Amino acid sequence: MSTGISPLAPTDIPDMPEIAGVRLATAAAGIRYKGRTDVLLALLDKGTAVAGVFTKSKCPSAPVEWCRTRLKGGRARALVVNSGNANAFTGKTGRQATKLTADVAAKAAGCKASDIYLASTGVIGEPLDATKFNGVLEALSRDAAPDRWMDAARAIMTTDTFPKVATARVKLGKATVTINGIAKGAGMIAPDMATMLSFVFTDAPITATALQSLLKSGVEDTFNAVTIDSDTSTSDTLLAFATGAASARGAPKITRASDPRLKAFAKAFHGVLADLAEQVARDGEGARKLVEVIVEGATSKASARRIAKSIANSPLVKTAIAGEDANWGRVVMAVGKAGEPADRDKLSIYFNGIRVAKSGARDPSYDEAEVSKAMKNDKIQIKTTLGLGKGRDRVLTCDLTKEYVAINGDYRS
Amino acid sequence: MSTGISPLAPTDIPDMPEIAGVRLATAAAGIRYKGRTDVLLALLDKGTAVAGVFTKSKCPSAPVEWCRTRLKGGRARALVVNSGNANAFTGKTGRQATKLTADVAAKAAGCKASDIYLASTGVIGEPLDATKFNGVLEALSRDAAPDRWMDAARAIMTTDTFPKVATARVKLGKATVTINGIAKGAGMIAPDMATMLSFVFTDAPITATALQSLLKSGVEDTFNAVTIDSDTSTSDTLLAFATGAASARGAPKITRASDPRLKAFAKAFHGVLADLAEQVARDGEGARKLVEVIVEGATSKASARRIAKSIANSPLVKTAIAGEDANWGRVVMAVGKAGEPADRDKLSIYFNGIRVAKSGARDPSYDEAEVSKAMKNDKIQIKTTLGLGKGRDRVLTCDLTKEYVAINGDYRS
Repeated sequence: MSTGISPLAPTDIPDMPEIAGVRLATAAAGIRYKGRTDVLLALLDKGTAVAGVFTKSKCPSAPVEWCRTRLKGGRARALVVNSGNANAFTGKTGRQATKLTADVAAKAAGCKASDIYLASTGVIGEPLDATKFNGVLEALSRDAAPDRWMDAARAIMTTDTFPKVATARVKLGKATVTINGIAKGAGMIAPDMATMLSFVFTDAPITATALQSLLKSGVEDTFNAVTIDSDTSTSDTLLAFATGAASARGAPKITRASDPRLKAFAKAFHGVLADLAEQVARDGEGARKLVEVIVEGATSKASARRIAKSIANSPLVKTAIAGEDANWGRVVMAVGKAGEPADRDKLSIYFNGIRVAKSGARDPSYDEAEVSKAMKNDKIQIKTTLGLGKGRDRVLTCDLTKEYVAINGDYRS
Repeated sequence: MSTGISPLAPTDIPDMPEIAGVRLATAAAGIRYKGRTDVLLALLDKGTAVAGVFTKSKCPSAPVEWCRTRLKGGRARALVVNSGNANAFTGKTGRQATKLTADVAAKAAGCKASDIYLASTGVIGEPLDATKFNGVLEALSRDAAPDRWMDAARAIMTTDTFPKVATARVKLGKATVTINGIAKGAGMIAPDMATMLSFVFTDAPITATALQSLLKSGVEDTFNAVTIDSDTSTSDTLLAFATGAASARGAPKITRASDPRLKAFAKAFHGVLADLAEQVARDGEGARKLVEVIVEGATSKASARRIAKSIANSPLVKTAIAGEDANWGRVVMAVGKAGEPADRDKLSIYFNGIRVAKSGARDPSYDEAEVSKAMKNDKIQIKTTLGLGKGRDRVLTCDLTKEYVAINGDYRS
């Protein structure tokens, strides 16, 4: 298991403001961990709209299937998240556990089970004993308060070394609205639609349809552009909740994501997602360096994305970064294996702004000492220019260290 | 760098017989390594047919481009291989280095430069100083002898911990012919057409066209079914040479791979490729366990291959194996992320023959102690049955250990 807080953890953690219509509570239900909280209940006021994106895994967890089905309603009254057990690959038992959890939560929140959203993270394949939520959720619903954001972020952690929160305030019409987000994720991170788990809340009055569209476009360059180990989780879930409470303060009701009044909000919303996604990369299992991979001059953005992912997922690139070695030969290898258009003799490669290779060969003016110094930074930018077109993309990842192997060599046992 | 011979190294190394028409010599040219051989010259008698398959990388090395161009001729008189420098991503200098090496070798072998085949392995991006071959190749051509197979296998090693050789004898018509192969490879192994470097020689009289067809079908389930770290090399080269010397002993001249007289030979040839490919997996950087991934019941062989590769390349599956943990949840994850047809509720998973999961959930009869014991073996078989169709495939890999990170965190510096 992890041995301390990631050296890449953000140093200034924002004060998380309250969001009208959202109350939170956490508890230690003893799902798996001892001596720490492992269940989060978020109560949402009537009229809260919900949107979600999920893993593209063909073997999704039971809670992912539960949420997908519920999402058609577009309404939410509560969110229950547990850590320690992913309730994934648990067959019929898994479906029964989601049903039981939702029933218990619905009773506690005083709503229908179909208004309950669920997420679970932790070990795959172990049956989740949902009877442990009996009593617990009811107590939490009495206890829930609007200021427990850090507790909420902590309760959903697994191998994370720090809680991940982000917040933004922005004008919507004449009212100021708030966006708060929390996330967890440190390994099995190669989101193909969302990340492990992330939840974003706002008091802005936005319909489920508009929120869904905002979320879908928002993940593309944030959570979907993060990879830690190329392993896509069975449980990736990103849910957004809009309580609409700000309409009482004059915020206009938004029904389309393309509404021009939503522009500033959309930007802030995207900023919260990007902030959380970067924190996931910063907490990559065993990570000592944050790595930003930029690909420019590709034939398209999609092509640039595939090449950037090929670089970001390459064990040889990642171990070289861990060794503080500007091994651009391995970057060439990763470009070459991506299967995308590339002309070796037009390639240039930069490490933290220093050009080490140009026109398909080592840059003759490149100074090894200067590059070696740059590689000691805890943030490394690898930029590759292909010289073929205008396609550009950016992906975040981290280095691959012995600690990653240690953490994952004895996670379950 | 590596700290000793892989514990998975084969224990019985075959005596490598001579092959009529092939003479070998090695030398220490000081390309990069000190105190070890780093150049191999193989001299081939007149009339030797050649076939080859190469990396699909979009950024291939200069020697790969050289060989591809020469292959049209179908004839070879010499092979020059150096370790320590891959002559990849070296631009115009790289092309000049291949030309110079071929010219020097042609003079030494008394043939045209277009009959010379080249391969280089080692660091990417460093210019290869081909003037180091001046004099060396001439001395080697005088020194060449038919019995230097182990020396040859040693001279092409980089991070390999043991030389890789394989041999077979088989009837062709009334004559007995011999097939000898050598290979190198331990990291940057996810061949997409061949592996890092492998060379197979026979005295059978087979035309270049027939040999090419044999090679192409032969790699599919051998070298192309091995992955160590999902990183495809810029230099993957597999060349086969048929001197035809056995025709003097009555072996029939073979012009088509489908010739029924070639059946036993084709099987033996495939066996040599499979043997070498398995040795590459056994020498995976830092490997402590050989892992055989079998996927059955997929909708097609191609689909089974993609799922098997997804499992074999998953850092989380590989670290679990390193930790001797039968973490089948991670196998489910890897099946799910492969993007191929899969029905979670029909999945079964076996570790070394013990079923741990069936019908989308933990096998209720599975005994953790029994599985834990099985995981201590140095060969682990992961079998996944999908229950969808008849597609089956098999991929070899190894575990992911801290040693892999150590080896690759300071390979270049």
